[in-house]
This record gives sequence, structure tokens and C-alpha cells, in this order.
Amino acid sequence: MKLKVDINCDLGESYGQFKIGCDEEVMPHITSANIACGFHAGDPLVMKHSVELAKRHKVAIGTHPGFPDLMGFGRREMSLSPEEIRSYIVYQTGALHAFAKTVGMKLQHVKPHGALYSMAMKDPALARAIVQGVVAFDPGLIVFAQAKSEMVKAASKAGLRVAYEVFSDRAYNRDGSLMSRAASGAVIEDPKTVTKRAVEMVKNKRVVAADGKVADLGEVHTICVHGDNLKAVALVKGLRKGLEAEGISVVSVGNLV
Amino acid sequence: MKLKVDINCDLGESYGQFKIGCDEEVMPHITSANIACGFHAGDPLVMKHSVELAKRHKVAIGTHPGFPDLMGFGRREMSLSPEEIRSYIVYQTGALHAFAKTVGMKLQHVKPHGALYSMAMKDPALARAIVQGVVAFDPGLIVFAQAKSEMVKAASKAGLRVAYEVFSDRAYNRDGSLMSRAASGAVIEDPKTVTKRAVEMVKNKRVVAADGKVADLGEVHTICVHGDNLKAVALVKGLRKGLEAEGISVVSVGNLV
Amino acid sequence: MKLKVDINCDLGESYGQFKIGCDEEVMPHITSANIACGFHAGDPLVMKHSVELAKRHKVAIGTHPGFPDLMGFGRREMSLSPEEIRSYIVYQTGALHAFAKTVGMKLQHVKPHGALYSMAMKDPALARAIVQGVVAFDPGLIVFAQAKSEMVKAASKAGLRVAYEVFSDRAYNRDGSLMSRAASGAVIEDPKTVTKRAVEMVKNKRVVAADGKVADLGEVHTICVHGDNLKAVALVKGLRKGLEAEGISVVSVGNLV
Amino acid sequence: MKLKVDINCDLGESYGQFKIGCDEEVMPHITSANIACGFHAGDPLVMKHSVELAKRHKVAIGTHPGFPDLMGFGRREMSLSPEEIRSYIVYQTGALHAFAKTVGMKLQHVKPHGALYSMAMKDPALARAIVQGVVAFDPGLIVFAQAKSEMVKAASKAGLRVAYEVFSDRAYNRDGSLMSRAASGAVIEDPKTVTKRAVEMVKNKRVVAADGKVADLGEVHTICVHGDNLKAVALVKGLRKGLEAEGISVVSVGNLV
Repeated sequence: MKLKVDINCDLGESYGQFKIGCDEEVMPHITSANIACGFHAGDPLVMKHSVELAKRHKVAIGTHPGFPDLMGFGRREMSLSPEEIRSYIVYQTGALHAFAKTVGMKLQHVKPHGALYSMAMKDPALARAIVQGVVAFDPGLIVFAQAKSEMVKAASKAGLRVAYEVFSDRAYNRDGSLMSRAASGAVIEDPKTVTKRAVEMVKNKRVVAADGKVADLGEVHTICVHGDNLKAVALVKGLRKGLEAEGISVVSVGNLV
Repeated sequence: MKLKVDINCDLGESYGQFKIGCDEEVMPHITSANIACGFHAGDPLVMKHSVELAKRHKVAIGTHPGFPDLMGFGRREMSLSPEEIRSYIVYQTGALHAFAKTVGMKLQHVKPHGALYSMAMKDPALARAIVQGVVAFDPGLIVFAQAKSEMVKAASKAGLRVAYEVFSDRAYNRDGSLMSRAASGAVIEDPKTVTKRAVEMVKNKRVVAADGKVADLGEVHTICVHGDNLKAVALVKGLRKGLEAEGISVVSVGNLV
Repeated sequence: MKLKVDINCDLGESYGQFKIGCDEEVMPHITSANIACGFHAGDPLVMKHSVELAKRHKVAIGTHPGFPDLMGFGRREMSLSPEEIRSYIVYQTGALHAFAKTVGMKLQHVKPHGALYSMAMKDPALARAIVQGVVAFDPGLIVFAQAKSEMVKAASKAGLRVAYEVFSDRAYNRDGSLMSRAASGAVIEDPKTVTKRAVEMVKNKRVVAADGKVADLGEVHTICVHGDNLKAVALVKGLRKGLEAEGISVVSVGNLV
Repeated sequence: MKLKVDINCDLGESYGQFKIGCDEEVMPHITSANIACGFHAGDPLVMKHSVELAKRHKVAIGTHPGFPDLMGFGRREMSLSPEEIRSYIVYQTGALHAFAKTVGMKLQHVKPHGALYSMAMKDPALARAIVQGVVAFDPGLIVFAQAKSEMVKAASKAGLRVAYEVFSDRAYNRDGSLMSRAASGAVIEDPKTVTKRAVEMVKNKRVVAADGKVADLGEVHTICVHGDNLKAVALVKGLRKGLEAEGISVVSVGNLV
């Protein structure tokens, strides 16, 4: 059977006159777009354009909800109640769904952003609150999460489909968790290395961790890439070509889980 | 044939710890709730509670989109492009729709808030942009507007149902437009007078204008009331009783247009 | 020598049309006003009015900086860098200073708000960042803090004057820390009990903790009161009378440290 | 006597992770920096860095207050009360003053941003409100305005110093007003033309208007330039060189009015 994987990227993170990312350049090379919903980034007009851009390139779309912290780009931890979290997920997902509906698209997935994502991987109560928000609005949505995380547990328990996500441009710890961004060597910038790691991740479900030992990753459904500068875009392009050259089909995650 | 009319009220205008309005007290007496969507007022948690409260009292709900101006409560005129307006309508309507969906409700209508409402009554381009936003998301939604306004023209042309709205606690000019809030006597506070005017508006489609002459109002589908203080709540209660005592049924506007 | 104490209250927490607190009613009875600066509450117009109100009643003013989280009223923990904290303190303090300057007043103190306050009592890095912001703008400002806290250490080390603050309407743990607001009995509402505790705190520098044992409080310079409803205002009034009846002068903290 | 002129540029318009402008590149070539204050752009950390950057290059700083509209970058007209305007000016100017104070700098001027600037040139009530805010905080500040504008009248009447500002990269109408940005040819991009126009403006106090006739500009104290992209930076560099080659000194406006 042919190997398949999804490539996802955070997009639509501009805000008014504030431009972030190379959305036009990266969109043709990915299969799932995580679109910001106005809390940590994105505004209604940006969301509209992002959805239209995704449609033009036949890229599946998902909601990318974040903390209500534009000044911190959703990267600062906030301590919210489960009820607040649930309602923030419903709000942001509903807003993006509306733009999807206007162009005849459906939402494929939900991928929390920044600190909300990383906290939810470890905090069962937070993971549960996110999952409840998703289930309340649309139990057909796929949740993105790292294998073995609290998010996977919460989503699976609630009957949601989960897409296991890896980061081929990030260093891993031996237990399969990501090395902290603050650590030296945490981000891998060489395109060839990134592609090679991605192929290894998809084919053999593992990666060489920072300590040189092999970390078991389990199933891999989607690879996260960045598109915030032109160098990143080149990396995405190379990654896709490299995967396909190895016989791995790159398809939207909705076909995989 | 029995006369019927809807009573609508702006609700869900609290924001975090900032409480506005007597939503719990006014909800039992109205038939349509216009719920703020986070731009001029309201936050996701408030929206959730407002939708649940409406459901409990079998009150129809609509979206109450406003300018992105929390500090000015959406009451300050802003000069936005039609494309911005359209996307703000889609965003806010989509967000409220999501909360409605989680409790199995449907949105009945859209009533723009504050300066957006009053500007749209007179500005054809703005009215058109709002209508395009509504049509793009859900052409089944009813738009609230004053008779003879640009909003009515734009909505009708686009094939939307329109509910003609009157304000029985506000003084009118002879041409059927509202007297400016700044003018002395613009707001009528005596409950009996308000009820009497409402009955006259529904029964005879007219009102005595500020200059003593009769102003023709045309069709009347919904009466707007306020619920921002306990005195206002008493007025709403009295209004509903007064209408019913005159043989006028008070029903959600979805049954009327 | 006559005993003296300051009474402080958080004020100016309205925002646009969103009204919070009974500022007009509470101002005549306090000696230090902590004025919100637009991040967790307060807007420029509210700040202007608050400063003018304080001037009218000869109440000393201080800045009440909070997290940039209007939706959460600054009560939700946020994880910010020391550099962010420093600049948020400078920004908010500078903004309030400007309003003070326009009416010929000077700032007396800085009291962080909500989660920023409670986190800073325990977190040395956060306390240090706040202190650095204060020192950078005006080393003449007094910092409010609970005795024995990290904030006291950081402020003292930097050469700032510190006012030791107590909460006579809150239950204490035996080590002199506040009982969590979530615990039952954490907030004391009986006016007589609150006054009696305040007198004991000022006279004997101690309080009966929740477990019935005596907690040593150390020096007491200022008592925090709330003014968010009319009952709270009555409590403040009673507290001031009660202190004065016991021969304790109520004066602005600038005279005490 | 040697001719002198100031070159000013809007800076510090980034916000959190959202980067705008080439502040590092443009700062060495200008003499006055207009720094955003957090309403339409800029955040506390950005303000801190901007003030430090200006200090390093010995560039005079001024406040660049805007409408509270981050999503619209302060470019959308808003209809605010004079009291709101006054307090927004005090707030933003006070916040920037605080950062200036921390590095031992003083504010030189105030230049309103975007729609606030262009509206204030024509609206006497708005111009007066801005001026009142400036006077209330610091009557020593210089106000930037176009010659013959309502802003000049209001500032002069209040006894403020005014710096007459021109835009050498913008087309003018014959009455000395700016051509609308929407009109074709409104923005001039050729560096040589821009420099030539600037020299003519400073030397002869006039410019060739869009209709080919000469428009009288009156006194010229400061030339506004943009630094939002690398091409713009090159233009600034060329402009400064060109002015100096013509024997015109480029100095901060505080030396000129």
C-alpha cells in the first residue's frame, strides 16, 4: 500500500495592515491550512482571503484557534477556565466555518495555536475543554495533536478523529516530545535534513532524537511546516518534492484518519 | 385576522467582568433577542450564556453585529470599506451561529448595532455591504430595518426577508424617521405612553410625530425595547401586557415575514 | 504616638459604556485610590474622570497596572517575559501620570492588579521586573505589597519605599498569606467583623487565621477595601469610622512610609 | 542665512510579532521620529525599543497618537467626542513620555496619525480637542500640521509652536492641500523627483501642483518620509543627501520653530 501523509501550515496570520507570512507562496505546496481566527492573529478580511486562497489551490482548511492575546501572538501561556476555553473554541471555529460556508467549503480540522497547543498536549483538563468545544460545534472535525499527548487521549475518548502531527524541522527528545524552542539546535534549517527526517518519520515512524538515540513516534498523519519567510517556503517546496520522490503521496489529512 | 407583532431587545452585551443589562429579567417578556457578537460588546462566554437563556425562554435569536469598537460600544461612526463590512458581518454571524448550533437552535435574524444600524439606514453602499454579508452566510436570515430605509431597499433587492422595526419609546419626525437621541424629548420614559404608542403603531401603522402631526410608518413587524435597567424591564413587561390586552399577539418575527 | 493607617481601593475600572464600581460613593472614605490604566480595565476618559474625582476628595492616587487582558479583567495568569512586564509597567504608569499632571497631581504609588499582583508576591523574577519598571520611570513611587512577599524583597533591594498591605475582609492562612478566594469563608462580609479585624491588624500587627491560630502580619500601612457595590461602600464607611473611633488616624500612605 | 529643514518619519509601528517598517535602516537618516503609542500600532515593548533606537541615533522623538483602531491601523475615520479625543491624546502622549523619561529623553513634538491627522487638518473642533490634549499635558510640545490647516489655527491660538509639514512624495492640489491617495499619481515614487520637489519646497516655499500650476506652501519646517520598505529607505537616504547637496541643513524641528 502506498504511503501517504499530509502537509499542514499555519496561515492567515496577518492582521489589518500587519502582514505576516508568505501565504500566496506556500499555499500551492501544502494540503491542509490552519487558519487563524482573530484571537491571536487574523481578522475577518484576512480570514476571507485565506479561505478563498485555500479553495483556489484545493487545500483543506481547519481552524487555528488561539488565546485572546494579539499582543503576544497567542504564544504566552494563559490560565483560563475550561468553560472559557470551550467557548473560545466554539467562537473561533464558528467564525471560520462561516467564511468556509460562503465559498462552499467545509472545515476539515482544528489545530490549536501556540501556547494553547503546547499546553493542551500536557494538560488533561485543557485538552478536554478544547475537545468539548469541538464536539459541541461539529464532531466530524479532526483534531491535530502529537502522538501520546493528553490531547490524543481526550479527543479519542470523545470519539473524535485525531491526526498525529510531527515537526520535521524541530529537534525531538527521546520520549517523542519536542525539544524546547529555547534550546540550541531546537530548530533545523537545512532543507535536505528536514526532508530526510520527514521521510524517516513517515516511513519508519521514528526520528533520531537530540541525544542520538532513536525516538519512536507512532503513527504519522501530518507534517507541520512554516511559511513565514521565503526561505521557509523553499523548504516546504523541497519537502513536498522529496516526499513524493520517495513514493509518499501528499494528501489532505481528511483522507488519512 | 388577529394582529401580531414581535418584541425585540439587545442582549448579551456584557463583557468579561463588565456587566450590562438585565438579561435574565427581560428575556421572559420578549420574542426576539439580538445578541452581541464580541465586536462592540459580548464575549464568547457571554454569547454562550445568552443563547442558552434564550433557549430556556423559547425566544428566537439573531445576531447583533457591530463596529469593532469595544471602547465606544459600537456607537461611534466608523468609515469602513464594503469589503470590511461584509467580512465583519460574516465573522460575527458565524460566531453566534456556532453557539446556536451547540444547543440545537437556528438563527432567525440579523440586526446591526448602534452606529452601524443608523448609518446603514441612510447609506446605500453600507446597507448593500451588510446585506451581501448576510446573503453570503445564510440567505434565510431576516434583516431588521426601519421602513423606507436604504437597508430595506438593499435587503429586498437581494431577496432577503425584512422585518420593519419601530421604537415605541422614541420620538419620531413626521417623515417616519427617528428624532435624534440628542434632541430633548427624544426618549419617552412613561410606560403608559410607550404602550399606547406601540398599540397605535401596530394597529394603525402610524405614530404622532414630535410636531404633533401624524407620521405614516407602513408595516410594523417588530418593536424594539431596552433592558439595560430594572425600570426598562418593567416597561417591557407593561408593553407586552398592554399589547395583549388590545388583542395583539406577541410572537417571534419569524412567523410574521 | 498616634496610630495611623491608609485605606486603599481599586477605582476607575469602568470601560466605555461598561460601568464597574461605585467610585463616586467610595472616594470620600478612602485615602489612596488605585486607578486602572486601560489594560485590564479603565480607558482614557475613565482615567481622566477618576483622577479628577480623587483630586476633588483630596485622595492620593496610584497606578493600578494589570495584564493586557480586558476580557479576563486581569485576573487570569499570563506568562510574560520580564522585558514585557517592565515595559507594561512603564506604559501604564506613564499614561496615568499624564492625567495626574493635567490636574496638577503627582502619583503616590503603584499597586499591580489581580493576577499580576498575586503572582508577583510569590515570583521573584516577576517582582523584580515590576520593580525595574517602577524605578525606571520614577523611583519616588511607593510600591504596595504584602509583608514577607517577594515583591517586598525586590522593591526594598531596589531602594523603593514599600507599603505593607492587608485585606481585612479576607481570611488569612497562619503564615500570613491570604486564603485562596476559592476556599469557603475566604471573603468576610460582615461589616463589624471586618472593622474589628482591621483594628486588630493595625494595633497588634496580627490577625486570627482561618485555623483559629494567630498569624503575625508585621507592619501594616494600608488596608485594601472594595467598592464594587453599595454594600461594599457601606462597609468602607463603617471601617473608616471604626478605625477612627479606636484612635487610629486614616491618612494617605505617602505619610507613613 | 543657511536654509534648514527637518525630516520626519512614522516609526515604531510594529505590534508584538507583527513587524512593520524598516526602523533600524531609516532612523540614521531622519531628524524627527513620530512614534506610535499603542492605539493604531505600537506596543509597550516596541515603544521602548523605538525610543532607545532614536536615542542611539540622536533623533528627536514625538508622539504619534492615533484612533483606537488596531485592525484599521488608525486609517479609518472615527467620529469621537472632543472629550474622548483630548483624553486619548493625553493617554498616548503620557505613555510615550514615560519611555522617553526612562532613557533621559524629552518629547519634542506631537503628530497625529492617519485619519486623525487628515481629519484634524479640516475639522476645527477636532483640531481644538487635539490641541487641548497637548496643552493639558505639556504646552512645550510642537504640533506638526500642514500650513493653512485648521490644526495650525487651533495650535497657534493656544500658543503652541507649530511645525509646517510637507510631503515631497505626494501630489498636491493647487490650493496647497494634498491630492487624495486614491487618485492616480497621488504618490510619487521616483527618488530624484521626490528630492527635487523637496528642494523646491524648502527653497521657494512652493510646489508644482497636479494641474501644472504652482501651489504656494508657505513656511516649510519638516518633510515627511516613509520607511515601510527598503525602497522607501533608499529614497530617504537620497532625499537627505540631495537636500544637503543644495546647502540645506537637515536638523530636528525643535531648532526651527
